[in-house]
Amino acid sequence: MIWNYLRESACILVISDNFFLMKLKDIGEFGLIEELKKRAFAGAETVVGIGDDAAVLTSPRKGMLTLLTTDMLVEGTHFDLRRSTPYQIGWKSLGCSLSDIAAMGGLPRAAVVSLGVHGDVGVEFCTELYRGINDLAGRFGCGIVGGDTVRSGQALVISVAVVGEVERERVALRSGARPGDAVWVTGCLGGTLAVKHLSFIPRIEEARFLVGRFPVKAMIDLSDGLGSDLYRMAGASRVGFRIESERIPVSPDARAGADEASGLRRALYDGEDFELLFALDASCREEEFAREFSSHFACGVSRIGTVVDPERGITLIGPKGEKALEEGGFSHFD
Amino acid sequence: MIWNYLRESACILVISDNFFLMKLKDIGEFGLIEELKKRAFAGAETVVGIGDDAAVLTSPRKGMLTLLTTDMLVEGTHFDLRRSTPYQIGWKSLGCSLSDIAAMGGLPRAAVVSLGVHGDVGVEFCTELYRGINDLAGRFGCGIVGGDTVRSGQALVISVAVVGEVERERVALRSGARPGDAVWVTGCLGGTLAVKHLSFIPRIEEARFLVGRFPVKAMIDLSDGLGSDLYRMAGASRVGFRIESERIPVSPDARAGADEASGLRRALYDGEDFELLFALDASCREEEFAREFSSHFACGVSRIGTVVDPERGITLIGPKGEKALEEGGFSHFD
Repeated sequence: MIWNYLRESACILVISDNFFLMKLKDIGEFGLIEELKKRAFAGAETVVGIGDDAAVLTSPRKGMLTLLTTDMLVEGTHFDLRRSTPYQIGWKSLGCSLSDIAAMGGLPRAAVVSLGVHGDVGVEFCTELYRGINDLAGRFGCGIVGGDTVRSGQALVISVAVVGEVERERVALRSGARPGDAVWVTGCLGGTLAVKHLSFIPRIEEARFLVGRFPVKAMIDLSDGLGSDLYRMAGASRVGFRIESERIPVSPDARAGADEASGLRRALYDGEDFELLFALDASCREEEFAREFSSHFACGVSRIGTVVDPERGITLIGPKGEKALEEGGFSHFD
Repeated sequence: MIWNYLRESACILVISDNFFLMKLKDIGEFGLIEELKKRAFAGAETVVGIGDDAAVLTSPRKGMLTLLTTDMLVEGTHFDLRRSTPYQIGWKSLGCSLSDIAAMGGLPRAAVVSLGVHGDVGVEFCTELYRGINDLAGRFGCGIVGGDTVRSGQALVISVAVVGEVERERVALRSGARPGDAVWVTGCLGGTLAVKHLSFIPRIEEARFLVGRFPVKAMIDLSDGLGSDLYRMAGASRVGFRIESERIPVSPDARAGADEASGLRRALYDGEDFELLFALDASCREEEFAREFSSHFACGVSRIGTVVDPERGITLIGPKGEKALEEGGFSHFD
């Protein structure tokens, strides 16, 4: 959920005289980001600033790039204390940023954690929260090297920032998809609120495998949902997508107690899948790729469509024909 | 206000059977940090983890180290929307982390900004907040390269993380002070709530001048107040301090409408000075140093005391004799 960039909405914003009188809920997260991007001080070492899963900076190590990303989780928006343990909240707070590093094809190096918490919270709550962070950090060799602890009046707030690195030859941006590329996703989608959003394993190993062996042209992590993140990649790459609804891997949790249409809707719009959406060069042989990926990773991988010209937009092709994919997903300012 | 480390309080915590049943307001920020430090996954590239103004990581650039720090500001704790403009809040949010980089003797490279905000907030508020961030960032060449924007139910929350770098030969830790060193502070202290805490200029230029030309043994930024941060440096360096109260540079804002004792108290405990407290090797000639520093920087510099053996604790010497310096300052969990 790092700032990302949608040209479409920007066009609407620029022509509005009342822009500065508007409220965040009117322009949404992406509208705000577009404004902030225009005004941001870029810095001399910035390769890719605001607008991808992580920022890309020059690195003094030859052939390498530095990655930097941050995510903020707020009680009531991203988790509910009645339905999640502090261990899970800690795990998720680091997991979101590690997923951003994965989406760039990179490896995490170190993280800092800021915690805003009420003084009446028990010490055990905090130590459990950090146990969740540390267990996930240890799994990927990411040092937890510092942070800040402050008093927050009511809601619990956690903000994590991660520094990572990636080979210059392997970095995967959102902006590299081209017409003719195949569109793939890892794992399965939807129904994440049941369990997965609190215990997912960031797809770092899968991403490293992908960028190390295959012609990945663009990649993004599915944090807001396929129905939103496809639009992010389309905007950054200036392309369209043709997505086949029957190829979308709907998770068992999304199917549970739902008819087919509802299951598909969940897979498109629930958000917080933390799977990888990526474009592979057309030269890559589909069956061989899927077989090799699945021989390494239990989550599996699905081809869901094809990159097309931008004027064709994002269409969803189903058994009853095709239609424009409705943009939607997890929203931050409703 | 990066996590820091106080051995004294840890000893109390370890012997408490009821530790896990305690609340944060009982153990305080430093007690919590001590617990988290014990449990943190260190990471292979960490030189100095939790416990200094910024974390220190190895750098691939020869002779250099990478710095990483974060600060979280919460409405009601660190600022009041009725008494500060969004521009000032933005400025302060980056300033706190740049002050941490300064305290290490380093230079900032890039920052990411997470913002938790209510959907009813106006767009202008946010653009003004980022204008404050960007103006300060531009002043020190620090790229604003990404972030996260999320909905926060009530209070405004801003979390900033900064990556910086410093020469291995010049890095200033909290832990290097030794008996006999001279203790100095930049600028003047106290009364910061009047104006300064919202508009201070992080002492990056001053710090670079210090570590580049003089034998700085230890350094910390005064975020919680001299009466607290002296204890942080004492704990990290395992030393005591002998501080002369008449040498403490009390700011005009701290003196305003106060008798001498109240002014001194403000200088010791108000917090948010964002000045540098540092220990200089005894070989450094006092008058020459002060003259050279003041010929470059208008804020000036004051010698306030001497580093002593740890068993002597931290004493304050005034016209009426000496006494142990009461530990205090800005507290996060009261």
